[in-house]
Amino acid sequence: MIVYCVSVSVKHGCVDNFIKETSINREETLKEKGNLRFDILQSENEPGRFMLYEVYRSEEAVRAHKETYHYKNWRKKVAPWMACDRQGEKFLAIYPKEDEDW
Amino acid sequence: MIVYCVSVSVKHGCVDNFIKETSINREETLKEKGNLRFDILQSENEPGRFMLYEVYRSEEAVRAHKETYHYKNWRKKVAPWMACDRQGEKFLAIYPKEDEDW
Repeated sequence: MIVYCVSVSVKHGCVDNFIKETSINREETLKEKGNLRFDILQSENEPGRFMLYEVYRSEEAVRAHKETYHYKNWRKKVAPWMACDRQGEKFLAIYPKEDEDW
Repeated sequence: MIVYCVSVSVKHGCVDNFIKETSINREETLKEKGNLRFDILQSENEPGRFMLYEVYRSEEAVRAHKETYHYKNWRKKVAPWMACDRQGEKFLAIYPKEDEDW
């Protein structure tokens, strides 16, 4: 599995819009056969800070995701709300090992 | 849900030991009634870099975890293998909303 941990900082006043658009992207991404998770987390101390936790079966699944309308539309919609550039880090999963545990 | 994203950098030569000890801590933590996930991720480009993704039901569950033998033993075991201090970030989950989706 390939896991992206994406750190996002959102401008003051844009948090509700960001959550709404990201939840739409999440719903559509979960329908992709190559995606296993898409968690949306908000910092307790800094409400403008988010972590997206996205899990894909393969590099091919990641590429397919980046070609979807919902991903491209999300990028476009949230761009003006970013306080700084998104920081995405790519990881390989050691655990869990089984598909059904994701 | 409370989610901890813990960044860990491990010294060269200590990676295998770190994975072994962390997988033991993971197995035991998953048995705690207040824990829902414990993913262990390894950076693709920097094999000494890890992310632990830990999900707990409540603050009480986090406190209970920190009092367990397996957590304290893990901390002690991995301490000499750390390349720098662990960086833990605390988040609240926006999605998923349902217990069974964790």
